[in-house]
Order: sequence, then structure tokens, then C-alpha cells
Amino acid sequence: MQDLAQQLNFILELDRLKAVYRKVMVKSDKNRQENSAEHSWHISMLAQTLHVYAAEPVNVARVTTMLLIHDIVEIDAGDTFAFAAQAELDAQEAKELDAANRIFGLLPEKQYQEMLNLWLEFEAAETNDAKFAKAMDRVLPLLQNMKNDGGSWAKHNVRKSEVIARNNLLDGLAPKLWTYVAEQIELAVENGWLLNE
Amino acid sequence: MQDLAQQLNFILELDRLKAVYRKVMVKSDKNRQENSAEHSWHISMLAQTLHVYAAEPVNVARVTTMLLIHDIVEIDAGDTFAFAAQAELDAQEAKELDAANRIFGLLPEKQYQEMLNLWLEFEAAETNDAKFAKAMDRVLPLLQNMKNDGGSWAKHNVRKSEVIARNNLLDGLAPKLWTYVAEQIELAVENGWLLNE
Repeated sequence: MQDLAQQLNFILELDRLKAVYRKVMVKSDKNRQENSAEHSWHISMLAQTLHVYAAEPVNVARVTTMLLIHDIVEIDAGDTFAFAAQAELDAQEAKELDAANRIFGLLPEKQYQEMLNLWLEFEAAETNDAKFAKAMDRVLPLLQNMKNDGGSWAKHNVRKSEVIARNNLLDGLAPKLWTYVAEQIELAVENGWLLNE
Repeated sequence: MQDLAQQLNFILELDRLKAVYRKVMVKSDKNRQENSAEHSWHISMLAQTLHVYAAEPVNVARVTTMLLIHDIVEIDAGDTFAFAAQAELDAQEAKELDAANRIFGLLPEKQYQEMLNLWLEFEAAETNDAKFAKAMDRVLPLLQNMKNDGGSWAKHNVRKSEVIARNNLLDGLAPKLWTYVAEQIELAVENGWLLNE
């Protein structure tokens, strides 16, 4: 029974991700901030739908698990805006590693190692699966902002070059998606939602 | 490009699941109601963690996809309390089938059929994967209510027999989980959170 107690403790701890709020707004729900739990669901669905565009086939099951777990560290480390200053992003990295060890460490040893390794693979973004998962995490806010008059971009004066740097891992990985995203970025500049620099 | 436009339209439509609120409360976030998007993430994580207890091995990837999509129909049909009157539950079934056809129907034909069939398999709860997925959807509210002074059970005068009827598909499917759940139900009665009938 000890394993089960650990697993259920982990599951109940996950409830706290529903209280971590992101900069992106949920247009469908009175334009409130989005939390990281519902975001994780949404990008998992994005991967389930768009994996067909991967130039080299990805393992959708692994990509999905990466996306389900990728933000769990925010329970301890909080969410950092993707376009925050580099020093803040670097500090976040160390906090997230501690968080991964604490939270995945609630699980029995074998599951702890499996989830930690998958999370590290996602963070490193070197394998094809991890790159594709990371791309999904980056494309969805773009789609949401485009449907929401620029959303968090417009509100926080984000630059075109920052959005390109964040999304151009799609180039080569899923060329058709990259073409679409690049067009959307130009459109956002035209609409005044991104700074043209 | 037509397929991609359909897929992105589907993904943006999914945003609306974040505005469908359930009876279960999120204790970690000021005890507000839980929405169906974050719930879908949480039970997907439950399946990823507890699949090891399945008496006959389940395909975790299929179970996870079922759980990610199982509540999407609520965008049109709304959430019905699990312990509502039978007539209400029956009416809900027809509304959900219409919703599945409309919402999965936003996708290109092949993906539409794949998601519809997986959703129908989940609803029928005849295959091992579907039974296990359904069990996950039923176990989590129990765990949440037990951590929250009876939560939605206590608030809506739910009976012990109803919770047993809803969870006893675990018996045989995952005996160790069923033993745990049966114990928790007894404890809920002792605590006055479930009616002893």
C-alpha cells in the first residue's frame, strides 16, 4: 500500500497547478487569466491534433506525457512570462529543477525517475519529441493572442523578434506550421499587437 | 492549408471547455468550482500514475487520449452532476452525441472519425481501456471530496450506494484500487459526508 499512498499524495499535490495563473487570457471565460492545469490540457490536445505535421514522425504518447507534466514544477516555482528578462528566466531554471525533484519525488522511485527524465528531456529540447512538445507549448499562446486582439503580447509590449526567436524551432521540425506561424507574426505586427523590432 | 485551418478552428473551440464548471471544488484555489479542462488534465495524470494497478494491462496512450477528449462534448451539452436524476442523465446522453458530432466534426474527416470512435468507446465502457479511463474519471472526485470535508457529496446529500455503484467497476479491473476506494467510502459515511443508504 505504500506505493499507492505516495501516488495519491502526488495526485492531490497536483491540484495546486490549478492555482498557478499565466499571462495568457481565456477569452471564452470572461477573459480571465489562464491557469497552468487547463493550459497543459489544451496543449496536449494541440499535439494530438497537429502531430501529423511533424517532418520526422514523433511519438505522440511521449509528447503528450511531456506536455501533461511540463508545467508541474510551477507549483513551487510559479509561472514566468515567456518574454521576461533573461536573468529572471535563468533564476527560474534553478527553481524549476528543485521543484521537479520535490514534486516528482513524491512518487515511488521508478515513477519518479521516469517523470524526472521525461521532464529533463523536454527542458533540454534536443530530441525530436521534446522539440515538438516545446513547439506546441509555444504555438498555442500565439493562436490565443491572435484571437484575442494581441492578448498578452499587446499588453506587455512584446517584440516581433522575440516571438520569432521563440517559435522558429518549428522551421524544419514542422515546415507547414512554421509557414503559418510566420504569417501570423507578420499579421500581428500589421495589427499593432507586436512591436516591429 | 484547408486541413490546418480546420484543426486550428477545433483547437480554438476547445478554449470553451475552460468555461464549463463542475460541482467538484478546487481546494487549492480558494475552493472555487473546478472546470472541465483542468479536470481533464488531472485525470490524465491520474491514469499516467495509476495504470500500474490494472489487472489486465491497459494501453496508457489510448486511455490518456480518451481522458483528454472525454468531456469536450460539455462545450455544447454542459456538465451534469454524476448523481443527478436518471431522466436528466438520459437526456444528457443525446445532447452529448450531437455535441460530439458537431465539435469533433470541426476536424478533417479522418481525425473526426478517430476522435468520435474513441469517445464512443469511452462512453460504452466495454473495452478494458475504456473501463479503466472511466474508473479514473470516477476515482478523482472521490479523492478530491475526501480531502475537502466531503466536498460535492456533502453539499448535495449523496448516498453511499450511489458512490459504490459509480466506482465498483474498479472491482476486478484494478482490485487494489477498489479495496482502497471501498475503504474511503466507509470512512466518508463515518465522517457524515455520505448518507448511509
